[in-house]
Amino acid sequence: MKQFQIFLLTILLLWPGSMQLLQGQSLLGFDDAHAGMQRALESRFDSLLNRENLRSWMKRLSAHPHHIGSRYGKENAEFIASQFKSWGFETEIEQFHVLFPTPKIRVVEMLEPEKFTASLTEPPLPQDATSGLTGEQLPLYNAYSADGDVTEQLVYVNYGIPRDYEELERRGIEVTGKIVIARYGGSWRGIKPKVAAEHGAVGCIIYSDPHDDGYYEGDVYPKGAYRSQDGGQRGSVLDMPLYAGDPLTPFVGAAKSARRLAVKDAPTLAKIAVLPISYADALPLLRALGGPVAPDQWRGSLPITYHCGPGPATVHLKAQFSWDIVPINDVIARLKGEEFPDEWIIRGNHHDAWVFGAQDPVSGLVGMMEEARALGELVKRGWKPARTIVYCAWDGEEEGLLGSTEWTEAHADELQQKAVVYINSDSNGRGFLNVGGSHTLEQFVSQVARDVVDPEYQISVADRRRAVDIVNSAAADVKDVRGRSELRISALGSGSDYTPFIQHLGIAALNIGYGGEDGGGSYHSIYDSFDYFNRFIDPGFSYGITFAQTSGRTVLRLANAPTLPFEFTKFTETIGRYVREVAGLADDMREETEEMNRRISEKTLQWTADPTQRVMIPALKEPVPFLDFSPLRNALVTLQRSTEGAVQATKNAGALVTPDIRRAVNRILMNFERSLTRAEGLPGRPWYVHQVYAPGQYTGYGVKTLPAVREAIELRQWKSANEQIMVVAKVIEKCSAEIDRARTLTEKK
Amino acid sequence: MKQFQIFLLTILLLWPGSMQLLQGQSLLGFDDAHAGMQRALESRFDSLLNRENLRSWMKRLSAHPHHIGSRYGKENAEFIASQFKSWGFETEIEQFHVLFPTPKIRVVEMLEPEKFTASLTEPPLPQDATSGLTGEQLPLYNAYSADGDVTEQLVYVNYGIPRDYEELERRGIEVTGKIVIARYGGSWRGIKPKVAAEHGAVGCIIYSDPHDDGYYEGDVYPKGAYRSQDGGQRGSVLDMPLYAGDPLTPFVGAAKSARRLAVKDAPTLAKIAVLPISYADALPLLRALGGPVAPDQWRGSLPITYHCGPGPATVHLKAQFSWDIVPINDVIARLKGEEFPDEWIIRGNHHDAWVFGAQDPVSGLVGMMEEARALGELVKRGWKPARTIVYCAWDGEEEGLLGSTEWTEAHADELQQKAVVYINSDSNGRGFLNVGGSHTLEQFVSQVARDVVDPEYQISVADRRRAVDIVNSAAADVKDVRGRSELRISALGSGSDYTPFIQHLGIAALNIGYGGEDGGGSYHSIYDSFDYFNRFIDPGFSYGITFAQTSGRTVLRLANAPTLPFEFTKFTETIGRYVREVAGLADDMREETEEMNRRISEKTLQWTADPTQRVMIPALKEPVPFLDFSPLRNALVTLQRSTEGAVQATKNAGALVTPDIRRAVNRILMNFERSLTRAEGLPGRPWYVHQVYAPGQYTGYGVKTLPAVREAIELRQWKSANEQIMVVAKVIEKCSAEIDRARTLTEKK
Repeated sequence: MKQFQIFLLTILLLWPGSMQLLQGQSLLGFDDAHAGMQRALESRFDSLLNRENLRSWMKRLSAHPHHIGSRYGKENAEFIASQFKSWGFETEIEQFHVLFPTPKIRVVEMLEPEKFTASLTEPPLPQDATSGLTGEQLPLYNAYSADGDVTEQLVYVNYGIPRDYEELERRGIEVTGKIVIARYGGSWRGIKPKVAAEHGAVGCIIYSDPHDDGYYEGDVYPKGAYRSQDGGQRGSVLDMPLYAGDPLTPFVGAAKSARRLAVKDAPTLAKIAVLPISYADALPLLRALGGPVAPDQWRGSLPITYHCGPGPATVHLKAQFSWDIVPINDVIARLKGEEFPDEWIIRGNHHDAWVFGAQDPVSGLVGMMEEARALGELVKRGWKPARTIVYCAWDGEEEGLLGSTEWTEAHADELQQKAVVYINSDSNGRGFLNVGGSHTLEQFVSQVARDVVDPEYQISVADRRRAVDIVNSAAADVKDVRGRSELRISALGSGSDYTPFIQHLGIAALNIGYGGEDGGGSYHSIYDSFDYFNRFIDPGFSYGITFAQTSGRTVLRLANAPTLPFEFTKFTETIGRYVREVAGLADDMREETEEMNRRISEKTLQWTADPTQRVMIPALKEPVPFLDFSPLRNALVTLQRSTEGAVQATKNAGALVTPDIRRAVNRILMNFERSLTRAEGLPGRPWYVHQVYAPGQYTGYGVKTLPAVREAIELRQWKSANEQIMVVAKVIEKCSAEIDRARTLTEKK
Repeated sequence: MKQFQIFLLTILLLWPGSMQLLQGQSLLGFDDAHAGMQRALESRFDSLLNRENLRSWMKRLSAHPHHIGSRYGKENAEFIASQFKSWGFETEIEQFHVLFPTPKIRVVEMLEPEKFTASLTEPPLPQDATSGLTGEQLPLYNAYSADGDVTEQLVYVNYGIPRDYEELERRGIEVTGKIVIARYGGSWRGIKPKVAAEHGAVGCIIYSDPHDDGYYEGDVYPKGAYRSQDGGQRGSVLDMPLYAGDPLTPFVGAAKSARRLAVKDAPTLAKIAVLPISYADALPLLRALGGPVAPDQWRGSLPITYHCGPGPATVHLKAQFSWDIVPINDVIARLKGEEFPDEWIIRGNHHDAWVFGAQDPVSGLVGMMEEARALGELVKRGWKPARTIVYCAWDGEEEGLLGSTEWTEAHADELQQKAVVYINSDSNGRGFLNVGGSHTLEQFVSQVARDVVDPEYQISVADRRRAVDIVNSAAADVKDVRGRSELRISALGSGSDYTPFIQHLGIAALNIGYGGEDGGGSYHSIYDSFDYFNRFIDPGFSYGITFAQTSGRTVLRLANAPTLPFEFTKFTETIGRYVREVAGLADDMREETEEMNRRISEKTLQWTADPTQRVMIPALKEPVPFLDFSPLRNALVTLQRSTEGAVQATKNAGALVTPDIRRAVNRILMNFERSLTRAEGLPGRPWYVHQVYAPGQYTGYGVKTLPAVREAIELRQWKSANEQIMVVAKVIEKCSAEIDRARTLTEKK
């Protein structure tokens, strides 16, 4: 009987159709008997969840500013640790020591054509209880800005990403030696000063345009949820796509005694001074710009004509920081696995905030805590997880994933041995389930989503997500969305604590949260408060509970499943899509380049230009050569064959699968994501070893899949593109071999 | 020799490839010898044009307000007539008597939630010399608004077109009994109160959002060309798609003694009170609206969150008018044709304005006058046009094409006998050539455009137009634009004086003007002044001269060409496109309806709705049946065969074409556009007889091609659609028969 169960599990693992056959009853990785027990366990788990805990913990945790190095941040870590201890977890606080600059001087003032001094402050509001705690708040600033003191003409650069500078170039606008003003959005904020410095700018101001999260989107705080004219956005400007974590200790845990780079040598620090401002502060600066009217897509919602500059607005930007090393406190809490103690299911959410952080990160954190408390209750009532569960409340996420990165770097060897999966969350709100992560887990997550009920419509959160996907899809894709029994999960870029796990260590990861009906603009301002959250984001914590049910189920199933619920058909389908995308990207760029060159040589660009405006006709671009995608395509065929072979083998294996085989298969499954990495990392950024998912060098948050190939094409590095096609093809062959190993194990009886 | 020439002409007329063979030398409708003479004439014509005349006439004509019924309007008509007389034209002023309401009372005031009274005035500016002549200016109002006095809650309806009301319905917002506020744009302004009244609204306010022609687009007047916060847009709100011209005298010229409808029975008058306001006046009203946040596409550029309402903003709207009959003065000036006095080339531009009208219409008018003056000079030097040329300076265009419509209605029989073509213009500015009109003239106009030089780049205006078409085309169409030797001319909807000619009488028409680099927002405000025009629209009148060269050539060639330069292959190709479009429209609507119904029945729409917002799930729509397009497709095949046959026949005719045949062919050609009409007119609007081009019932400006079929489909009237397919197919067969008649004439020797 046991062996038959295991056979069934293995079928479930590899045979995509099996789910439908078994209809809603089955659980990937479980036989029927275990599935029944598991469902009973999950029901008990659900019944233990209490929204009052979320509320009271949020109230406590967001009562004072709790950024890294703060008194209250440390108290929060200790409070969280004490809670985990009280729930029966083996808990410790692990400390690292990281670079954390805080401002000594911040000045943004306009000298010409008129005087104006930016306030750089967010005023207290009577409707927001904590907003008046001004003494403890970190001021509005961008962490890891360079020290700087410059007075120069201003240039508006839209989102400040590479294509925006191409538009400026076409208008003959130089940014060398100038101060740029960029609006938030369109990229990770650290991209803005990076690209500005690459173009010779000497300072960077980042403002929140009301178009992006202010009055254009909805009523502003405190009337509504959106950013008011005085609300600013703090945030890190590390060059995170190069490496995450403490800028001074790449690759190693930032222990007190760790060898550190000198601050001047740390490559992820911004090269120029950067300060963020509100739109009340931005308005006079932007209004004073001359030069050409900004391109249509650049115009925000301020009541002005947007101009590019340069000048006549002349701005004095001064930023000086105290470059301190401060301790950060990761809370690590373990429940030891009964059957497979060395297979770790890791679950994390950060606890540090820029200020009060009710939504970011406390909404995710309190959901995770309630989930952990309920697990502790289950243990008290006799349940024991088969695998070890590790809960992590990270410090220093806001500055650049410091807590998670230093911990993964410090424990890299052990994690690569023992980690099965890392399940991340960050913030949570009202609306639709969002999941990103490893596509080997796509089918598994879809099952979890099928079993969680949406609190607004009493349907599964999977059905609700599917409805949104139908509405948001291009017409050509709607059929695919309807026809697919699984949800499509997105690929992970960066911006939260999954990055060191999946992209630096090759540990399968998921990122989970709800949102989409909770729009607003309190992000990284003092108004991300308990009062704000309870009025606008998730009043009554309904989605807090739904979230705990979702991530709790994810943990419980992964911890208990006799066979790990990884699945290859969805993964292989997804790799196939990525291969087609990068090949299509080259084709599209070839056509665009041909068309653009033709418009230049046939003078279309010149003749459509208004001669009263300065317009530079770009130089002809090198044509896009035909790249040799055959290695990737052949590797894909191999992967498809391996996946089909494995599916067939598990069908044929009958009742012959033994516990040893299962154990061996589980080892292959838990290490599978590692086969997608290369020790050498990506070209120019060795810290990022994953060859399928990485944050883009010029997007930061946004993912680049098959990044070595895709970015070489995007950056028009044809030689590198051809080389990386070979490299990535080998990686895909390596992972195919892992699938073959699993098949062979199943066949060999 | 003469016969050979005529043969050549006929080839040129019907054989599309011939132009390229003859390379740049040939002129459609001319043999080589005549072409040489014609080119010499055109060179002489060009050399006579003098930009100083444009400047001084504009200064004079726009020195005071000159709307219909005004003292200065009459003086302008007399001045224009005296000029034409002095240039040797047989000139008369033809008077009609039309309904022209002017405001006695205008009130827009908000009573709740706070008091605000709209100023409804445009202040004088020191930088604008005529803006201070406040005593003579027509106030800001919409002509043909109903009298009304209502106090109701306000609802924001975006552009106020039918699909905007569908959006409101989905949000559960009723407009019955409310006052709507719509922004200018998206349709002929008369559509806004029409659709509002159809939905039960009792009043309508129309404002100029800064997004559409204010600071979003560029610096505002007097710093730049765009609409300042106090600039308003006057304009007629007649239901012009029902019929144009005097509302009281449809189908007949509004002679003093004409039988008139009672004002209360005139169907084109607005059913509710309407007033236009500036964005300074709109801001407090829109800011005071509650209810749901407006859809993304509805949000303009005011610094507020746009809400739909209804209320709490409560508005008192009062408009009362003096409903007078006033005289209007059309200036009609003739040069009698030497060879074909009963073949008329008619050229027109209106002379009335809302206020000073330097751009609209004086910029077009002075170009036309200079063109006529140069023609007069040519006559003085011995040239005689083969055909009669009729210049018309229309009055009352702004109120609803009054002058042109009454004149065409008064002279309908004679025009249908004698009119070859009507060439219209309205305003002119800096930039690219825009041509709309009869597609039988597409090849002819392309030749004209090839022979006029752009003043900014010294290339042909055809090449410059083609460059813009390449840049503005969808990727899929770029190849077509490049591969075509002719420009594509647009189909005519309405909004200027071509409408009564082409759509009411079936006279081939063209509409010509330059623009695209002259953006601005003075339209129908007091700031459309001489000072404004000379700073922003066409400083130095370079494009005024180019415009006169273009329309002058058009007139000269049409007046002189031995064979009329109509051409059928481009026409047939265009009809083919329209047939494919209407069939495709039905297919697209079928797919959309299926998808929408599916989203309703599978609950996708419900599950993606935020339950805290009121959202109405629409009822299932009747599926779109398969319509029988075969009659249209068969008629198209007949048309294609006829066109090919005619091309072949003229190739084969050799030197056998006689002057009598040429004369007979010319008769067919000049009457050809009439074969595209039906005496019964379009369904529900008998005044519009053209079956290929009409203004849309719910667009006003925007054309609907094959309107009877297209609008039946759009309005989901399937039975009517099938019927109209038969009707329009018969029309296409009728025009094919005309082409066959021309072929037979050519063959019969």
